[in-house]
Amino acid sequence: MTPAPQPDDRPRVRLKPKINARGLRHGFPWVYANELVTDRRTRSLQPGTLAVLEDDARAPLGLVSVNPNSRIICRMIDRDPAAEVDVAWFAERLQRALDLRARLYDAPFYRLAHAEADGLPGVVIDRFGDVAVVQPNAAWAEVHLAAMTRALVEVTGVATVLKNAGGRTRGLEGLDDVSGVLHGQAPDRPVPVPMNGAIYMADLTGGQKTGLFFDQRPNHAFAARLAPGARVLDVFSHVGGFALAALAHGAASALVVDGSAAALDLARAGAEASGVGNRFQTRQGDAFETLAALQEEGAQFDFAICDPPAFAPARSALEAGLRAYERIARLAAPLVAPGGYLVLCSCSHAADLERFRTACTRGIGRAGRQAQLLHTGFAGPDHPQLPQLGESGYLKALVFRL
Amino acid sequence: MTPAPQPDDRPRVRLKPKINARGLRHGFPWVYANELVTDRRTRSLQPGTLAVLEDDARAPLGLVSVNPNSRIICRMIDRDPAAEVDVAWFAERLQRALDLRARLYDAPFYRLAHAEADGLPGVVIDRFGDVAVVQPNAAWAEVHLAAMTRALVEVTGVATVLKNAGGRTRGLEGLDDVSGVLHGQAPDRPVPVPMNGAIYMADLTGGQKTGLFFDQRPNHAFAARLAPGARVLDVFSHVGGFALAALAHGAASALVVDGSAAALDLARAGAEASGVGNRFQTRQGDAFETLAALQEEGAQFDFAICDPPAFAPARSALEAGLRAYERIARLAAPLVAPGGYLVLCSCSHAADLERFRTACTRGIGRAGRQAQLLHTGFAGPDHPQLPQLGESGYLKALVFRL
Repeated sequence: MTPAPQPDDRPRVRLKPKINARGLRHGFPWVYANELVTDRRTRSLQPGTLAVLEDDARAPLGLVSVNPNSRIICRMIDRDPAAEVDVAWFAERLQRALDLRARLYDAPFYRLAHAEADGLPGVVIDRFGDVAVVQPNAAWAEVHLAAMTRALVEVTGVATVLKNAGGRTRGLEGLDDVSGVLHGQAPDRPVPVPMNGAIYMADLTGGQKTGLFFDQRPNHAFAARLAPGARVLDVFSHVGGFALAALAHGAASALVVDGSAAALDLARAGAEASGVGNRFQTRQGDAFETLAALQEEGAQFDFAICDPPAFAPARSALEAGLRAYERIARLAAPLVAPGGYLVLCSCSHAADLERFRTACTRGIGRAGRQAQLLHTGFAGPDHPQLPQLGESGYLKALVFRL
Repeated sequence: MTPAPQPDDRPRVRLKPKINARGLRHGFPWVYANELVTDRRTRSLQPGTLAVLEDDARAPLGLVSVNPNSRIICRMIDRDPAAEVDVAWFAERLQRALDLRARLYDAPFYRLAHAEADGLPGVVIDRFGDVAVVQPNAAWAEVHLAAMTRALVEVTGVATVLKNAGGRTRGLEGLDDVSGVLHGQAPDRPVPVPMNGAIYMADLTGGQKTGLFFDQRPNHAFAARLAPGARVLDVFSHVGGFALAALAHGAASALVVDGSAAALDLARAGAEASGVGNRFQTRQGDAFETLAALQEEGAQFDFAICDPPAFAPARSALEAGLRAYERIARLAAPLVAPGGYLVLCSCSHAADLERFRTACTRGIGRAGRQAQLLHTGFAGPDHPQLPQLGESGYLKALVFRL
């Protein structure tokens, strides 16, 4: 095999001796800082510099981005060490990502690029019709943002590209948190997003993360099948993900609970836009306190959903997080009428499926209830995974019948 | 708390000292043989006898069925030790099971009862319109088969109830393998089953297990979304599960491969009934050999599915099973055109999700291909789980894009 020709001026970085390159050859996308020879030259590379990664025998493994400040010191950008990362390169990756989503969805509302699994390490792009929101969460993406934006407009035809710099991992990469407009004009009002028969309102400039989460779409759809005639309680509702889908599928009523008045306003606007505003109520407050208060009030629902923020975002918070998930289950179960349904979700990386399920089962048991587990769902297929990263994904949704 | 009154003539069985009853109180449904006091009286109980289970302080825990010949010596039948297991008792459990399925499905084709999780330990009931097929895979169910059959007819209105005694676990319970007709008349031809826009043909008297598997329905549905225009290869097709759904959703063609001529005949009949016979081809043969032959022929597909029988049915067969899953992935991946899809399934209890995914990923890697993991699916919600059994289910379906 002849190595591809390489521009002479491209920096080279090298794996330490004894670091096995087989994982990298088979698709593992990262090199950790302790696996790389970090001589002065490598340490002095600007974050986001593209370099040729070599094994310890100096055979090239591919083109990587280097960030000497990050624990993930290299990210595989292209198996071809001579690849040119330009507008055409981004356009090819984005077209491939778009082909999948166009096959999956009737309307252009989805996660268009999900980082490593879509060949764009650290880059998340959500699409809301003719607006795209880019999260460049790795240094290399920040460096090449202009080319990526141009390719994005070319491939998708979106009129507006926004930059969301709120990602938690940007700090780890040494990046700032300044969001802005990369192309076109920022929308001056929330964008209506059709999903599962409902209309959601996404605030793309002021909202949490990208204003709306697409990841729960298949779990919303599953829950909606059980919703006809049900009195629904949606806790940690954000903009009304589960509740609006349930109402659109014939739920009798929905009470949505969130700590954020802004999220509840958007949920209310979504309910009006979906034509279900007359069956829709909001209650602002702390979720734990509200669950306890509803129990004191003797409230009963046929369908309760708790989709909290990550209680165990990191391994260090795992035990406390699992206790919080158990507590949520214990507080929510008594509010579900016999034969009713309970959806419990986790978006914690650290809490794997088995641990999360055990915490939920224990909480339901402590509430004196028995459960059937009907459905285990993950993030939708517009959030693909790189199987080499060996996780079944951060998002878990369990649907119980009590 | 006053214990419920109990008929004096009901046998009693007792947990050994130091066996913690907390799991049982919180919903764990089984007692293993080494956890029970097995004096001569208990050993002499007829398999399937109902008895009151007591903890070592003689407090009643519930009504159990006892099978002294089985490793699962007790199965929890009812938390109420005085419950009468009669037609009304079965009717109440079946009605509860039916309520869920009626909410989930437009037409009466589903798994109606899924054993422990539906409160009917060891009992599986599949419904095909006005025919129900019962698998009484535990001794107590065999004893109460007449009452169960009567309740089944009352609750569902089915005209025919068949008994399928082919279940692997019947042997462990000391039961025979004689199938038969419990009520009405056996259908004299395959029954058409509508699912996911296709018509399947279920041979309820001669086929594998209950003639058709409902468990893959949501995974068929997911795959079908990716099928428009695709050349589909369905290996281990049985009666055409993935292929017919894909054709009904616009696949260009499907080649189905199975070792059984009878299964292929049913698949062909299903294709004709679905109006897609002109895009449908069959090939009888060993799956491994056929995959290798197709590669030699240079065949390419946009969508390949391998849904084999359990390669690792028990823990002892795990390593060999995982190698077989890896080999399937390695043989199938080269047949998928770039950008195409590969569905790999396992119905092995022993191969958990992570191990199965690792085997598949390795096989794809050894074929020199890179993959995105789009979807991880389990059995549908008409196959509920008891969360205390602590498994995420035997069936796993992984959808990759190569």
